[in-house]
Amino acid sequence: MSASASASPSTSAGPAGGRRPAPRRPSGIAVDAMGGDYAPREVVRGAVQAARETGTRITLVGRSPELLSLLAEDDATSEVTVVHAEDILAMHEGALASWRRPRSSVAVGCKLVRQGEVGALVSAGSTGGVVATSTVRLRTQSGVLRPALAVVLPTQPTPTVLLDAGANADAKPEMLVQFAHLGAAYAHTAHGITEPRVGILTIGSEPGKGNRLARKAAELLAATAEGPPALDFRGNIEGSDLLSGEVDVVVTDGFTGNVALKSVEGAVQFAFAQMSAALGGTRMARLGTVLQRGPLRELRERMNSETYGGAILLGLNGTVVLAHGASHAQGVARACALAGDLVQGRIVDQVRQRVHAAGRSATRRQRRATPE
Amino acid sequence: MSASASASPSTSAGPAGGRRPAPRRPSGIAVDAMGGDYAPREVVRGAVQAARETGTRITLVGRSPELLSLLAEDDATSEVTVVHAEDILAMHEGALASWRRPRSSVAVGCKLVRQGEVGALVSAGSTGGVVATSTVRLRTQSGVLRPALAVVLPTQPTPTVLLDAGANADAKPEMLVQFAHLGAAYAHTAHGITEPRVGILTIGSEPGKGNRLARKAAELLAATAEGPPALDFRGNIEGSDLLSGEVDVVVTDGFTGNVALKSVEGAVQFAFAQMSAALGGTRMARLGTVLQRGPLRELRERMNSETYGGAILLGLNGTVVLAHGASHAQGVARACALAGDLVQGRIVDQVRQRVHAAGRSATRRQRRATPE
Repeated sequence: MSASASASPSTSAGPAGGRRPAPRRPSGIAVDAMGGDYAPREVVRGAVQAARETGTRITLVGRSPELLSLLAEDDATSEVTVVHAEDILAMHEGALASWRRPRSSVAVGCKLVRQGEVGALVSAGSTGGVVATSTVRLRTQSGVLRPALAVVLPTQPTPTVLLDAGANADAKPEMLVQFAHLGAAYAHTAHGITEPRVGILTIGSEPGKGNRLARKAAELLAATAEGPPALDFRGNIEGSDLLSGEVDVVVTDGFTGNVALKSVEGAVQFAFAQMSAALGGTRMARLGTVLQRGPLRELRERMNSETYGGAILLGLNGTVVLAHGASHAQGVARACALAGDLVQGRIVDQVRQRVHAAGRSATRRQRRATPE
Repeated sequence: MSASASASPSTSAGPAGGRRPAPRRPSGIAVDAMGGDYAPREVVRGAVQAARETGTRITLVGRSPELLSLLAEDDATSEVTVVHAEDILAMHEGALASWRRPRSSVAVGCKLVRQGEVGALVSAGSTGGVVATSTVRLRTQSGVLRPALAVVLPTQPTPTVLLDAGANADAKPEMLVQFAHLGAAYAHTAHGITEPRVGILTIGSEPGKGNRLARKAAELLAATAEGPPALDFRGNIEGSDLLSGEVDVVVTDGFTGNVALKSVEGAVQFAFAQMSAALGGTRMARLGTVLQRGPLRELRERMNSETYGGAILLGLNGTVVLAHGASHAQGVARACALAGDLVQGRIVDQVRQRVHAAGRSATRRQRRATPE
């Protein structure tokens, strides 16, 4: 297996500061075939679907004999490569297991990214295990304090990125400022938003509201927003605004972000269930539901997390896309398509450029503040 | 105006430890007539409705001439008392305004509670302003570290209490343990649950997950759950479980609680809006919606925050119920009914007993841990 050149090397922007040689830009994607509630069957099917639909070069990582036989069932042995990994990170295993399992499919997938064989890793495995393994194996990008888990909320007309959604339960204000840059790079690369609006998740809409962390982070964001790199910082965002599309990027610590995300997921499910119960109550209402079958099915699909391809771990030397644990083939295929777009859009370079520019601005500000 | 005796003095349990004489137990309720988006018109109407429906003695606090003329419009001058307060805490004013406005309707309402003229205060005013004013004027109950704002989530078959929903943005683990007791006292008094199940809001379902605060608080809760007073501590609860009814009380800090609550509110609204948009799309779907009008209206009403009467500030020397700022008469009346139930159920005594018993247990544990 050899790494192919990037699909569009001619548009390559140099790395931050132009000080290093441009790294090789692999375009393929490694897929952890053993992670997820329906692995490996649905993961293999999703990988094949992605290869056929997008033309992306896919490498399945996992127990080779099993994977080859599943590929044979789909007549796809020639379309998708397999790399063997003997071990599996189980769905119930958390962050510590990643240390105990250096030969897990996630660890081997990370190795392919590190070696430049592929540009990204897709996994539907346990979030804690995948985040820990890839943080250890891919390492944090130079200048990045902590990687952050970004999720995409189904706002209209463009989606909203929420980060950190759980990678760092205890964060510092400086990390939240970096998350803003990571999120802005993502909104730019994945959603084509040239000047993403950034908000900080807190309580109360006026400046100065929130806990110590949010207040300090909001201050830092306001003070550094002029850049470079410039941030269109819009101040405080409340939980009720998460789905209103008021901003393109919502910044928070991993604890608050995860609670907020799961609260939203639970509430949407609750609302649908209540609605179904209410509409199943009377014969007239049931008849009404039959007439609505089409639009309701469409809506459910749109709200379904599979449609959004899961979460993205930003700030590492390589792109990691986490598909939902309950992903079927469709969800895995979408995660592969997203990973392909991020590799094409050079998200890792975008993050590096932003973070380095912010670092240089901070140094300049400090020098101005303390003249000799 | 004189305070009447409690409706059921014979069932009175002595105060914690039986060391103090039982305080006078006023049964009436003060209503801040000037707080809320539709004050004073809708507040006056709601107060009159509550007086008529529940027979509770209501005292409206605010600009006397205006209130008397509104009461005259409703032919209710003889049914509801008015106490004058010249100043108003505006909806946009936060915690600091409470210091600047000692003659606000909220401050005067608190004075009536303190003087024993009434047992509770109801306000639809700004949450920050009402929480700050009542904390200063009513003072925290003996042994209580911080008052907490409790909200009631519409789970089935019984509601779930979430606290703190915003009174303490930065909390300590010991506070969260007390919030568990405050919440248990509330679930017992307001929902008749004799042994409320308590969970802590965090990320991840296994013990040891979460940020530093949640991890430490979970440890303390597990260590002290045997009591007295006993707590049926069920461990970690995730954002997605908030509406599942798995526990009766969810404990968290005020920052996380407020973000979670608003995320739930926003997501439910979003789901309804998406549903409406989907169902308005085709002619058949619109016809279906017409057939469902009855059940959908019922559901919206049940999900409506007015139905739940707002939030409750627990841990003060007196009961404070915060109606939703956008409350119409119905919402104010529900808040008054809830306040009446809490006064009848002696919530302040319940909290005192639990907190004092927990304090004594902690002292005993400490003595056992450090023998001479």
